[in-house]
Parts: sequence; structure tokens; C-alpha cells
Amino acid sequence: MTEVRIRPRQVLILIIVFIVLLLMVHRNGKRTCDGPDYLQAMYTQQQSDTLPKIYAITPTYARPAQKAELTRLSHIFMLVPNLHWIIVEDSNSTTPLVRNLLLRAGLENRFTQLNIKTPQEFKLQGKDPNWIKPRGVEQRNLALTWLRANVNVDRHAIVFFMDDDNSYAVELFAEMSKIKPGRVGVWPVGLVGGLMVERPLLDQENRVVGFNAAWRPERPFPIDMAAFAISMDLFIKYPQAVFSYEVQRGYQESEILRYLTTRDQLQPLANNCRDVLVWHTRTEKTKLTAEEELIRKRKRSDEGIEV
Amino acid sequence: MTEVRIRPRQVLILIIVFIVLLLMVHRNGKRTCDGPDYLQAMYTQQQSDTLPKIYAITPTYARPAQKAELTRLSHIFMLVPNLHWIIVEDSNSTTPLVRNLLLRAGLENRFTQLNIKTPQEFKLQGKDPNWIKPRGVEQRNLALTWLRANVNVDRHAIVFFMDDDNSYAVELFAEMSKIKPGRVGVWPVGLVGGLMVERPLLDQENRVVGFNAAWRPERPFPIDMAAFAISMDLFIKYPQAVFSYEVQRGYQESEILRYLTTRDQLQPLANNCRDVLVWHTRTEKTKLTAEEELIRKRKRSDEGIEV
Repeated sequence: MTEVRIRPRQVLILIIVFIVLLLMVHRNGKRTCDGPDYLQAMYTQQQSDTLPKIYAITPTYARPAQKAELTRLSHIFMLVPNLHWIIVEDSNSTTPLVRNLLLRAGLENRFTQLNIKTPQEFKLQGKDPNWIKPRGVEQRNLALTWLRANVNVDRHAIVFFMDDDNSYAVELFAEMSKIKPGRVGVWPVGLVGGLMVERPLLDQENRVVGFNAAWRPERPFPIDMAAFAISMDLFIKYPQAVFSYEVQRGYQESEILRYLTTRDQLQPLANNCRDVLVWHTRTEKTKLTAEEELIRKRKRSDEGIEV
Repeated sequence: MTEVRIRPRQVLILIIVFIVLLLMVHRNGKRTCDGPDYLQAMYTQQQSDTLPKIYAITPTYARPAQKAELTRLSHIFMLVPNLHWIIVEDSNSTTPLVRNLLLRAGLENRFTQLNIKTPQEFKLQGKDPNWIKPRGVEQRNLALTWLRANVNVDRHAIVFFMDDDNSYAVELFAEMSKIKPGRVGVWPVGLVGGLMVERPLLDQENRVVGFNAAWRPERPFPIDMAAFAISMDLFIKYPQAVFSYEVQRGYQESEILRYLTTRDQLQPLANNCRDVLVWHTRTEKTKLTAEEELIRKRKRSDEGIEV
């Protein structure tokens, strides 16, 4: 049998060559994927499956600023890997505007596009202030139906109602990921109800014992739709939990929560409700006076252009 | 001299072990950095230094929705690696609110925090509509002074004026990266000037020959501040290019551009000005009636909380 003969110096050289190769490959692997640490950390965590999937339900309707607002919101989804977007259009069919926006954001496998038209009698008329009739009831209920039918409840998941004009910090979704099975998480919301911040009040053991709401504080849960998220298993346990047209203004949150939790069972998040990670911003109605003049002349500025 | 003797089979085993090690290291390098393809692509490109740095100048001032709006805007910076944020506060000193927000967004090495107070005679008073007096003049000029003093002009760079309440698509910054040295890039802006879209008009050779603005179309450059970005070398070549208080409403854009370019030298971007990648959205003024009542009672909802 033949043998290869190598001198010790050659062995050393071979080892050095291999180490250099290893380092080069390692470096190269890293190079393709630099970026902010928090992103890296989230993606790594997501891959190791320690983060529950968060289903964000967004009712939306056609208006001049729709694409602008959904584009802005899509950045959150680009940054938070465990978010799944259930977007429900108030229309007779899903639109290419919304679909293309979701695809352009790289969310191929992370969205569900639904549609359901609000019945005419509940639609806002011309100058109605937008709180006269309940908004998004049909759309949120359709999303809940979809979730109950399609989500594997053996895996912990979270449901959040994410309006398309609020402002969200990325950290809010890290907080939501801490919600325990069977619980509803709560946190403060900025710039809502006429206050700088509406928030749950905690006792010394960090249990929710009240709320600081100034507007209709007598509501069972005097909080905004952006102030809470729900463990998915509760929607399975309580199939009757849905939104309703039959409730007073400002009672939608209380309506859904009364099925799912009691005050003392709420799970306070965001540094024991001391950090503000979501704000109830509202976008001004678009002024289109020049456009209306064009339209009278049978012209338009966005001929062939999607705005 | 001693020699190491190895059989061919042993050599084969050694090679296999090394290949497996290489693959493991390679895989491990990759694993830490998964994520959306477009993010990976941008970070890779950025590292290979093919993208020019884009300096985004944002004047900002204290108001209830300031943190909400800057938080939302910071997502763009998290997603676009070649963006550097020059944020100029209208205040007597820089604030921890802005600084902490920038640090929390992971932008340690990618921001410059400046401050300069607008002189009292130019400040908006109570109910003045916000277009009566020019906004952001001092702040934008301070940013330009900083850029002229601090940027290495041997490397191609871009300057963009990025207001804190508009909505931006990530793709806008990929378009801006295409601006050539010595040029000003232009593109459409949605929801501005009373129109669905204000945009440059091109001839058959894709040169800018006009604009579709309905409001003051006689302006030299009847476009919004969000409609253009400028190759940094032009600010060095034309040191007199600054913003001014001495111009009529709506003429700030024309004022700065008249030093730097002519209409026919504008570089059309965004699919020859057919794609809308930025929208002039505006956030509603925050209603704080309940908060004002609290303050009369010497209380507040955000005691010890930054909103």
C-alpha cells in the first residue's frame, strides 16, 4: 500500500491554509447580511421559532391617502419578521393597489388580502363626522372568521387590531410577543381621547386596577383599539366574541374584550405601562380643490398614474 | 528529519472533514442574517460602496405628535442603509427626546443632531395658518452649513429635504441613489398643491420641459420640497445657494434650485416621473381638550412619561 509522506512544516502550512479559508468563508457569510443589530436579533429569534406569530388586522378603504398610509405602515412589516398582515378592504373585491403594495414590500408569504363591503346603511355620508357610525366592524369580523378557520391553534399566536393611520414603534411588537396564552396584553396609547396619553393604572403588584381615560371612563374597558392585543387561543375558546353594530360610540373595544377577559386578567406590557409605543395620529383629509377643477374640465393629474 | 505518514483513505477523510467544517461555518454565517431579500440586497450593495450616501435634512419642532412622527420616519432609516439623517431642532438646545429616538432606532453612526431656534419675528403665532411665514429656513440652512463643512466631496453624495410628516416609499431612496454628479433629480409627489399628483412633464427624449402644477405654475420650479434631491457637489460649487426669508410663499424650492440647476438639466427619476413614491400627507393637529382640563387642575396624563 502506498503512503503519502508529509513533513511537519507542510502540515503546518496546510493547517494555516485551511484556517484562512474558514475565516474567509465565515466573513463572506457575514458580509451578505450586515445591518442593524436589532433586525439581526429579531430575524435570528424568529428563525429559532421563539417568537409567536402576530396577526395584525387592518381594515382599509379607498381614499386619496390610502396608498401613502399603507406604504408607511408596510415598513413595520418589513422590520418585524413575526408579523402577518390581514388586510381587509371595504370594497366589493380586493384591489390591485393593495395587492401590489403588499408584494412590493416583500410580504409574499406574510399577508392575507380579504374584502367585504360595509352595508350601505352603516356607511358614512358626505359630511358625517367619522365617529357617528361604527367603522371597520364588518372588516374586523371577517378577519376574525378567517383566523378561526385558518390558524393552527396548537401554536401560540397573537391578534392585534392595527388601524392604518396610527403611528407604531417597532418595539411595540416585541412587547406584544410577550403576551401569554389565554391573556390580553395592554399598554398606553399616545394622543388619544383628548389626552397626551391614555393608559392602564397598575397597583403595586403591577396588576391593572383602572384606567386614566377622561372620555367615557365608565366604559368596561375605556381604552383605544390600539391599546391591546389578544392571545389567539381566546378567540377559539370564545367563538361568540365579535364586533357589533349594536353598541354605542366608543364601546367596540369593550364589546370584544368583555367576551375574552376581565380587568384583573389583563397583562400589562411596555415597561409596566410607562412606555408609549403607539400613537393615535390621524392624517388630514386631502385637499383636492385644483383636482376637482380639472375633473370639471374632464382632465385629471393622475391620468395613468397610481397615487 | 521525521515524516508524517498518511494513507490515501486518511487524506480523503481529512478533506471531507474540512469541507463539512467549511459548510457549517458558511451556514452559520448566513443564519445570523436572514431577512427580506431587498434588505439583504441593499446592505450588500451598501457594503460594496456602490451606493452614494444620501443626507436627509429634517427640520423638526416640539409638538404633541413630534415623537410619533419621527418614530414613523425612523423606519425608513432602519430600512435604507445609505441614508444619513441630519435632524435640526427648532430649539435652543438639542433634546434628549430626539437623541434617544435616534439611538433606539440603531442609527448611532448615521445621524447628526443639530439645533437652531427660529427668530421670534418669523415664528408662527397661535392661529396663523402654517404657510404665512416660511418654515424651516434657519434649520435647513444650518444643515447645509454643516454639510459644506463636513462632507468629503471627493465621494459622490446626495442631499434631500425630508419633512417629518410626509409619507415615503423605500423605493424613493433607491431612485435618489441614481442621481448623477452635478445634477438635481426630480420625481412626482402625491397629494400636494390641491392635486392628486404634481409632476414634471417630459418630452419624447425624457427631458423635463414643464410641470403640471395648478398652484402658482409661474414659479421657476413649481414643485414641492419633497420632489427633488441634489448632488452634493453642487452645494460646494455654488456656496451662495441657501434658503431665504425674503421670498414669497411657495418660492423656497425655486429659491434654492435657481442657484443649482436649470429646468433642462433636471434628471427625471421614478420611471420617467410616472411612479409616485412620496406623498405630501399631513398629520391632524392633536386635540387635547381633556388634557387642558387636567392642566387647569394642575394634573397631567403624561406625568413622568415621554409621549
